[in-house]
Formats: sequence, structure tokens, C-alpha cells
Amino acid sequence: MVRNIKLTLAYDGTQYFGWQTQKNRPTIQETLETNISIVMKEKINLIGSGRTDRGVHALGQVANFKATTKIPEDKIKIAINAKLPSDIRVLESREVDIDFNSRFNAVDKTYIYQIYNSSVANPFYSRYSWFVPQNLDLTKMEEALQLIVGTHDFKGFMATGSSVKSTIRTIYEANLVTENNLLKIYIKGNGFLYNMVRIIAGTIIDIGRGLKDISSIDEVLIEKDRSLLGRTAPPEGLFLMNVNYE
Amino acid sequence: MVRNIKLTLAYDGTQYFGWQTQKNRPTIQETLETNISIVMKEKINLIGSGRTDRGVHALGQVANFKATTKIPEDKIKIAINAKLPSDIRVLESREVDIDFNSRFNAVDKTYIYQIYNSSVANPFYSRYSWFVPQNLDLTKMEEALQLIVGTHDFKGFMATGSSVKSTIRTIYEANLVTENNLLKIYIKGNGFLYNMVRIIAGTIIDIGRGLKDISSIDEVLIEKDRSLLGRTAPPEGLFLMNVNYE
Repeated sequence: MVRNIKLTLAYDGTQYFGWQTQKNRPTIQETLETNISIVMKEKINLIGSGRTDRGVHALGQVANFKATTKIPEDKIKIAINAKLPSDIRVLESREVDIDFNSRFNAVDKTYIYQIYNSSVANPFYSRYSWFVPQNLDLTKMEEALQLIVGTHDFKGFMATGSSVKSTIRTIYEANLVTENNLLKIYIKGNGFLYNMVRIIAGTIIDIGRGLKDISSIDEVLIEKDRSLLGRTAPPEGLFLMNVNYE
Repeated sequence: MVRNIKLTLAYDGTQYFGWQTQKNRPTIQETLETNISIVMKEKINLIGSGRTDRGVHALGQVANFKATTKIPEDKIKIAINAKLPSDIRVLESREVDIDFNSRFNAVDKTYIYQIYNSSVANPFYSRYSWFVPQNLDLTKMEEALQLIVGTHDFKGFMATGSSVKSTIRTIYEANLVTENNLLKIYIKGNGFLYNMVRIIAGTIIDIGRGLKDISSIDEVLIEKDRSLLGRTAPPEGLFLMNVNYE
């Protein structure tokens, strides 16, 4: 009988060309599909909650696959981890309803964007954060983040050249948390456009440095013009933290 | 006029064959010497407080070199960091007495050994900790650590085959700190024998797992027989935290 298995995944994206399978380049999806297929003794098709870009990390990505295996649900995690390289780990494996789809059933996602803010970079954070040596106005950054909360047309916060049916998204929460020299931007929403979190992070940093005014956020939400915003923050600071389902 | 410059260094040792210069292999010392020589416009000789092994990290290694440069002491840090790869950083640069020697003047050093203790490994700690999935008796581990505090002949805690004049060392402090699934063993002493911290960490874990008895520590301090102790913990969990001078 065919079963539907939901996986919760953590990965260090540094060595991968993103989530989605590509020819001749290591990706997270392909690495998982290859190793899960070996464990399942059949070729499986892995559906992720969404793609992550080259160099982006995950603390709680969700994916599912169908297989006829008889391995108990919690042992599937152990069997797959025994095959995977150490930079990808299955944190949890659960059998779910046969109709569950990790992409279409996702109701919200939370991302973390990490910034290392100090005069000298930290070698232990260079893979996991954006190094910003300038002084930052944290109060202004927190204030700017609150402006993106709510339901808006985020067309101006999307990488130019990408296309989707609707560019309207709802951001439920956006917060800035500081832990010594590490700044963490948490953003929870019902969906995200291409590069949206990295454009938000880049813009928030430009506002913190005084290069952009807080008002540029509201302007872009009205004008929908990407060019009014700041830079796109680099991928290594981005983590998909978790994905929620009903 | 010749000046003596003291550097405080942090590095991620993953990609290096340890501190000491070797033929045809990247090392921390050689990478630093090459780049500092470019900045100083003369060939410099870098003296470290001690070697770190392949894969071992540093949060506060200390080294010094002599040069005739006129660059102000605090600008030396910036100039060298501009040349270095991102996994090595100069945290501080200070001009010190011409007789200062970072190796011979060190009065104590502190190491941290990190263990990731959970049923599933964490991809973000695989470079920076020893993954131990078994249940550990933390009380026994803490108790065992207290037995090494004091002045002892640590001959039994030294990698076999190494030779030094004296194997007597004083350990000032040894503590176990837990942060969620991360265990940190802090050890401060006036000096350490080859592989000493990794042999202590390996033994403490064997005691925590119930494979060795606490009494094996005292036995080795008396018998001085390396074979009575547990395994040598892997290098990736080890960090040279700091080096103190009078």
C-alpha cells in the first residue's frame, strides 16, 4: 500500500546549488531523492514546501514523498540519515494523509535572516550570516519592519524578472532580535515572493545605516517599484525556520 | 625601528592542516605569514602561543611578529584582515614590548571542547562539535572533570609517541556547561600535552556513557598509562578559547 511520508529537514545550504534539482550540480532535492530512493528501494519523488536558493539554509524545511515501504514512520528518519551527508538531516519523519502536499497545504512559513554586526567579521558566522560592519540604528530597523506587517501587494519586493499570478501576501509578524553581535530578523507570512526576504533584509540594513529612509517601505508598497528599495541581502544569512500546516 | 606586534586571532580550522607551516598544505601559520608579509612589505616570522591540530579552531589564539612598519597598532588589524580569507580573522593588534614572546610568556590557556548530544545530528554544528547521540550522565561527567583539577603528572593523558621534558601540568579549572543539546567542556591550565584536551574529552564522554568508571581518571594519574583511558575525541569539537599573559 502506498504511504505518504512527511519529513522535517535541516540543512546547511553552503555547498548546494539550492533546493531544486539541476543537471550536474548538487542540490538539496536531488541529494535527498537519491538517498531516500535507496532506502525505499524504489524511485521516489520529493515535494518540498518551496525552493530555497543557492547558499540558503533550513532549520525546518518540510517535504513529502510517497512509497510502499513497511519501515515504521519514526525509523524512516534514522534510515535516511544513515545515508545522507552530514550537512542535511531529517529531524522528523511522520506518516500523513495520502492527500497531504507539503507545497500546497502550507499555511505559513517563517524565515530568519541573520546579520553579524561588528567591526571585525566572525569566522564562525561567515557561512551563516551577512557581515555588516557599519553602525546600525536598531530602533529605525524595528520600526521599518513593522511597516511590512499586514496584507500588501509586495510586487516591489520581488526580484525583477520573476512572474507569479498574484503578488499579494500577508505578513503576520516581523521582528528584530539581537544576541550580542548577531541580529536576527524573523518574518512570518502566508507566502513569499522570489527574493522577498532578502530584499526586505537588504532594505532594513540600508535603513539602519541611514542610506534609505523608513518612508521608502511605504512608497514601494504603493508604487510597487523594486528600484526604490535597497540591495538584496546575500543568501548565506537566510534560514527557512519552519513551515506550518493546518 | 623594529616593533613587536601581538595579534589575537580567531579561525575556523576546518579547511587547514593545523597551525604549523607544512610543505604544500594550507596551514594557519603559513596563511597568516604570507598575508602579513604582504601588508608589512617585508618577510615576517609569526610566533604562535602553541600549535593547534588539523581541524581545531580558535576563538582567541595569540601570536606575535616583528616588523619595521609605521602603521598604527590598531590599523594593523584592519590591513591584515583585508588580505586574509574569511575563515581567519585578526580580532586585535597591539604593539608590545620587544621581548614579548607569545609562546614563552603564556601563563595559562583555556580550551573549550564542544559535544552535540541529541538523537539527530545538527548540520550547523557538524564542523564545530563532536556528535554523540547516546544518553549521557552529566553529573558523573562533571564529577570526573573535577578529578583532573590541580597539579598532576598527565603523562597518561598524552598521545603515545610524543615527547616533552616534563609531563607535569596544572589544571586551574574544568567545567561542563550545557546549552540545550550543546555540551561545552571548559579547561584552563598552565599548559597542555599533545592531544591532552581531546583525550580528556573522549574519556569524559566514555564516563558519561557508562563505558568507563570515574576511577579510571585517578588510576591514570597514578599509573600514567594512556591505554586505561577512553578514546581521543575528534578535532572538530576543540577550540582554543584564550591565552593569558602576565
